[in-house]
Amino acid sequence: MTHSVAILGASGYTGAELVRLIATHPGLEVGALSADRKAGMAMAEVYPHLRHMDLPPLVRIEELDFSGIDLCFCALPHATSQAVIAELPEGVKVVDLSADFRLRDLSDYEKWYGKPHSAPELQKEAVYGLTEFYRDEIAGARLVAGTGCNAATGLFSLLPLMKGGVIDLDDIIIDMKVGVSGAGRSPKENLLHAELSENWHPYSVGGKHRHLGEFDQEFSKAAGRRVEVQFTPTLVPANRGILAASYVKGDAEAVHAALAAAYAEEPFIVVLPMGEVPAAKHVRATNFVHIGVVKERGSGRATVYAVLDNLCKGSSGQAVQNANLMLGLPETEGLMLAPVYP
Amino acid sequence: MTHSVAILGASGYTGAELVRLIATHPGLEVGALSADRKAGMAMAEVYPHLRHMDLPPLVRIEELDFSGIDLCFCALPHATSQAVIAELPEGVKVVDLSADFRLRDLSDYEKWYGKPHSAPELQKEAVYGLTEFYRDEIAGARLVAGTGCNAATGLFSLLPLMKGGVIDLDDIIIDMKVGVSGAGRSPKENLLHAELSENWHPYSVGGKHRHLGEFDQEFSKAAGRRVEVQFTPTLVPANRGILAASYVKGDAEAVHAALAAAYAEEPFIVVLPMGEVPAAKHVRATNFVHIGVVKERGSGRATVYAVLDNLCKGSSGQAVQNANLMLGLPETEGLMLAPVYP
Amino acid sequence: MTHSVAILGASGYTGAELVRLIATHPGLEVGALSADRKAGMAMAEVYPHLRHMDLPPLVRIEELDFSGIDLCFCALPHATSQAVIAELPEGVKVVDLSADFRLRDLSDYEKWYGKPHSAPELQKEAVYGLTEFYRDEIAGARLVAGTGCNAATGLFSLLPLMKGGVIDLDDIIIDMKVGVSGAGRSPKENLLHAELSENWHPYSVGGKHRHLGEFDQEFSKAAGRRVEVQFTPTLVPANRGILAASYVKGDAEAVHAALAAAYAEEPFIVVLPMGEVPAAKHVRATNFVHIGVVKERGSGRATVYAVLDNLCKGSSGQAVQNANLMLGLPETEGLMLAPVYP
Amino acid sequence: MTHSVAILGASGYTGAELVRLIATHPGLEVGALSADRKAGMAMAEVYPHLRHMDLPPLVRIEELDFSGIDLCFCALPHATSQAVIAELPEGVKVVDLSADFRLRDLSDYEKWYGKPHSAPELQKEAVYGLTEFYRDEIAGARLVAGTGCNAATGLFSLLPLMKGGVIDLDDIIIDMKVGVSGAGRSPKENLLHAELSENWHPYSVGGKHRHLGEFDQEFSKAAGRRVEVQFTPTLVPANRGILAASYVKGDAEAVHAALAAAYAEEPFIVVLPMGEVPAAKHVRATNFVHIGVVKERGSGRATVYAVLDNLCKGSSGQAVQNANLMLGLPETEGLMLAPVYP
Repeated sequence: MTHSVAILGASGYTGAELVRLIATHPGLEVGALSADRKAGMAMAEVYPHLRHMDLPPLVRIEELDFSGIDLCFCALPHATSQAVIAELPEGVKVVDLSADFRLRDLSDYEKWYGKPHSAPELQKEAVYGLTEFYRDEIAGARLVAGTGCNAATGLFSLLPLMKGGVIDLDDIIIDMKVGVSGAGRSPKENLLHAELSENWHPYSVGGKHRHLGEFDQEFSKAAGRRVEVQFTPTLVPANRGILAASYVKGDAEAVHAALAAAYAEEPFIVVLPMGEVPAAKHVRATNFVHIGVVKERGSGRATVYAVLDNLCKGSSGQAVQNANLMLGLPETEGLMLAPVYP
Repeated sequence: MTHSVAILGASGYTGAELVRLIATHPGLEVGALSADRKAGMAMAEVYPHLRHMDLPPLVRIEELDFSGIDLCFCALPHATSQAVIAELPEGVKVVDLSADFRLRDLSDYEKWYGKPHSAPELQKEAVYGLTEFYRDEIAGARLVAGTGCNAATGLFSLLPLMKGGVIDLDDIIIDMKVGVSGAGRSPKENLLHAELSENWHPYSVGGKHRHLGEFDQEFSKAAGRRVEVQFTPTLVPANRGILAASYVKGDAEAVHAALAAAYAEEPFIVVLPMGEVPAAKHVRATNFVHIGVVKERGSGRATVYAVLDNLCKGSSGQAVQNANLMLGLPETEGLMLAPVYP
Repeated sequence: MTHSVAILGASGYTGAELVRLIATHPGLEVGALSADRKAGMAMAEVYPHLRHMDLPPLVRIEELDFSGIDLCFCALPHATSQAVIAELPEGVKVVDLSADFRLRDLSDYEKWYGKPHSAPELQKEAVYGLTEFYRDEIAGARLVAGTGCNAATGLFSLLPLMKGGVIDLDDIIIDMKVGVSGAGRSPKENLLHAELSENWHPYSVGGKHRHLGEFDQEFSKAAGRRVEVQFTPTLVPANRGILAASYVKGDAEAVHAALAAAYAEEPFIVVLPMGEVPAAKHVRATNFVHIGVVKERGSGRATVYAVLDNLCKGSSGQAVQNANLMLGLPETEGLMLAPVYP
Repeated sequence: MTHSVAILGASGYTGAELVRLIATHPGLEVGALSADRKAGMAMAEVYPHLRHMDLPPLVRIEELDFSGIDLCFCALPHATSQAVIAELPEGVKVVDLSADFRLRDLSDYEKWYGKPHSAPELQKEAVYGLTEFYRDEIAGARLVAGTGCNAATGLFSLLPLMKGGVIDLDDIIIDMKVGVSGAGRSPKENLLHAELSENWHPYSVGGKHRHLGEFDQEFSKAAGRRVEVQFTPTLVPANRGILAASYVKGDAEAVHAALAAAYAEEPFIVVLPMGEVPAAKHVRATNFVHIGVVKERGSGRATVYAVLDNLCKGSSGQAVQNANLMLGLPETEGLMLAPVYP
């Protein structure tokens, strides 16, 4: 049986990635597409690479017909997302890809996103979408809040280390190198090819990146105490991918063992042999995560390296993985695509 | 029922692409892998992006066990290929990705490849692998010769125009812009990132590119007379893809109509509305071809633009499409992947 | 003695390139900078790579003080340019980098740029800025109209072939591969890194590119009869550079000889030995042009390849070269920089 | 007066970069060029971007005539370098770009480079080439050892912080993102465009990068005690440039003040206003260094960001800067080129 899904905000990169994944997913089909500024256009006009597919036209959200829709992927900007989801029919399950329902504490939301939350009741029922750590809650949820792509990369790297004294929880530095597609398709000067090619630079420096809200929430919950990591991303001249280097204090072998144990049964997460390191392109366009651990010189220092594809495992692939669980489908269905290389 | 296939020369880019496509192909599974210089290694060592897959080890060709193998993809260098294929068990079907069996006239082979053919008998039975034009012969063949990737791009652009006086057959210029993966994974100075990034230049200029042999053969056969086009490729700083601009003399509307008619029922070939042009990334990592026709100023001049992915539709995707036919599977099986964008 | 120059529209890429060239030019110094939307900012805020230089602030054009300014580089959009230049003090020489004064026939201007020219008197005195062909007129001019960057590449390739029956003037096709910086710094979706990286596609197809106006004018003038070439550019994923392939009918040796003779004494134009081809990166960030000629198979066909840097020789470098002449400085002064490679 | 210089190992990227810088240097000219494997070729064959220059042919080192040569740039591989320099005429000054004379302690050399030093006497007289910190010694030296490019980036970031208790010397982590040209022009699989484009990954992990030897030596010397930093580079898909993020414990304002004071008079080193961060492309193809300081959340943590061009300030530009001092020329002569942007 095939489930029909709607994609709200289909004209962005995560919307296009959802369509790509659903194209070969045996259990899902695209039942409706919305895009405000591009309403009235065919998806093939907005994304000619999808012209071989038979897709519904892009319409305004208020024009959508939700009858027959089992699940709704919401790829709208934050703030818009909470307003729209509050109006959706009750019977429709929702995977939200925005930041609106990630932070459980409403004051945290206000702190990081600069305004009060407009749908606090919905917030309460939302489940954080990091599948490997919230599998059971997600399977039973009506509303799942997809994680930030950087947040996912850091959380996969470190969550299993938050307990048991494996690392010093007060001295964690995460240095990420991220591709540009996470910044979206809206034209901005700093995202131009001419500006970014042969260029790289840090951004959101000084503890200002909003995904810190997710780190604080999830690391603290896992540790059972307040944990605040240091985190800065650097934009690199590539389209897809995130590489996180997490600098920790702890025994490298113990770190590796804790990660290997945590992910031993996970279909999408591979812990490399001790000392091996991952490369961003090794998981390109897939739902996989590769994690490596390196012992540093000096005693008691280690680095955890993790890579994932920001648009797939960091966003739309994770969303499909969660949708599979919510709809009672096998978790990996439609997601075992091999990376595109080179 | 799943067919077991072997990939000879699996350590090159076309070998890796075959594995990627088979990874989600419901009717094929990888039964054996060979790679001479990397024999003894796991595929995941050579291509860590495939580490999530359960694959047979890389062995020398002479160590391969062909019992249980239904079809063999041969991704070896030319000259090597003919020697190896001549020794394969008779019951194994073969899709050859090298240049060895593309040219029917042995003197053409010698002219373009610089040495006599060593398996002339095999040459006779080989079918040229341009699926859309040799579908029936391929379905019944034991040995199919995959086309050159540039050859395929030019042939898709122009083959339907060879008859009926649509264009002037004596005045055809094909200008291709090609990504670098077609040059393979062997380290060469001119293929270094430092050399190629921010660089582009023509190569194999002056009528020396070997795919001209395929053009001459197929265009002449279709036209029923000798046709010799002019063709030069330019290497562009990208990994995958080919864009061909074919400059012809003829009525643009008639050119468009002939192409649209020829490909109306083809699942992988899309003829764009008159005047629209394709982009290389719109077919990235897929088996699709997009073709556009433009009327030039001045009377009686038109340009045909075509894009495909050199490693997929130009090589390994085409090989799987042909294998589907040879094994009695649906032609599109495993090949309806959507492009990776951005 | 140092000449003081103003740069109007200094916040665009050609403005920044002018500053780069003047930085090490012994005879020029930047006396004033204008930029409308960024007025009030320091150049180092708009272009931090220039922060080591001591530059005047960006002001609105109406706030500029032209006393002490010997020459004005005008890097404004077309249409704006003609209005601004009409108001400049009479004693200030002008090198205009826009399209406003390139076309001598006012009806051509209206045809290609879609509106009547507002400064027809100025148009009459303007000299076309292709230095190597208008050297004497430029030396005595008050107003020089810089050429289009694509126009320059095609003109250098073919102008010396317009006379003497070297090639068939009715059958010329120019296929250009161009980097993205020519499209400027204004944010547009199709110029994003995510869109362009790993992508390439033709644009302004079907005889619509505005530089055709310059081709028609200059080729016809040189030939002494109407000449209309066919020309289409393809955008490639790189920042700087243009490669033109000009497909002509004529004897390749005669073509090479005509080009070699025409440029024998030119300091910036290098004609490669017969059969050698240029690469875009070989002239990166310089004022040089490399030209190669290839004999095609079949009789009487040749291809002329030319490369230049669109922002330098195609625009700002050409402008400085012209300014040198207009100010009585050595023509090559400040322009003998070697290419940045790799 | 112009000084004549020789470049040994001119066929590598640092050799080509030296020629580029000398092309517009008023006080230097290229008197001789050597390259072993490419002996007998013209420099324009090896590097066609230099074809406009009148350069001596590439010869074997043993064929070089050192009469008239004032200074020799030695851009040879390590180990080769020490053997060659030991044989140079006594009157010729030498700037060595290899690693051979950087480490004062011969056992350190053996530890990091895996074999005993063959010219220990020369080692004693060599001056470490970090110009801003060894200016006086360099001016009087016969042999200067150019620094590693990564080493230079880290040393500029942190050397002024080694004294006065500004930062915790036992807790320093340097995370560098480096372009690929530092790996040289020798063909290697991992340096191919197809491998590196859209890819990035750490390398020399676990305290194994050889530039750690330089860090240990220089930081310890400056601090007056043993200092061992943690350092890992990540290869990013770009040709030129290094961005270092140095994670330190200390008051951000004090860190910024110490750096600003140290570099207040330096012509090539710019300390950005507090909180601003540099970008790799802002110093592209120049001798400049941009340094920024960011205060992290949590008390007492700061990050120092520094960018430089690995081939220029990190190698050949630094070499010219040192040569200027050794030859009594103004230190900045020939080096005030503005960055190429975009």
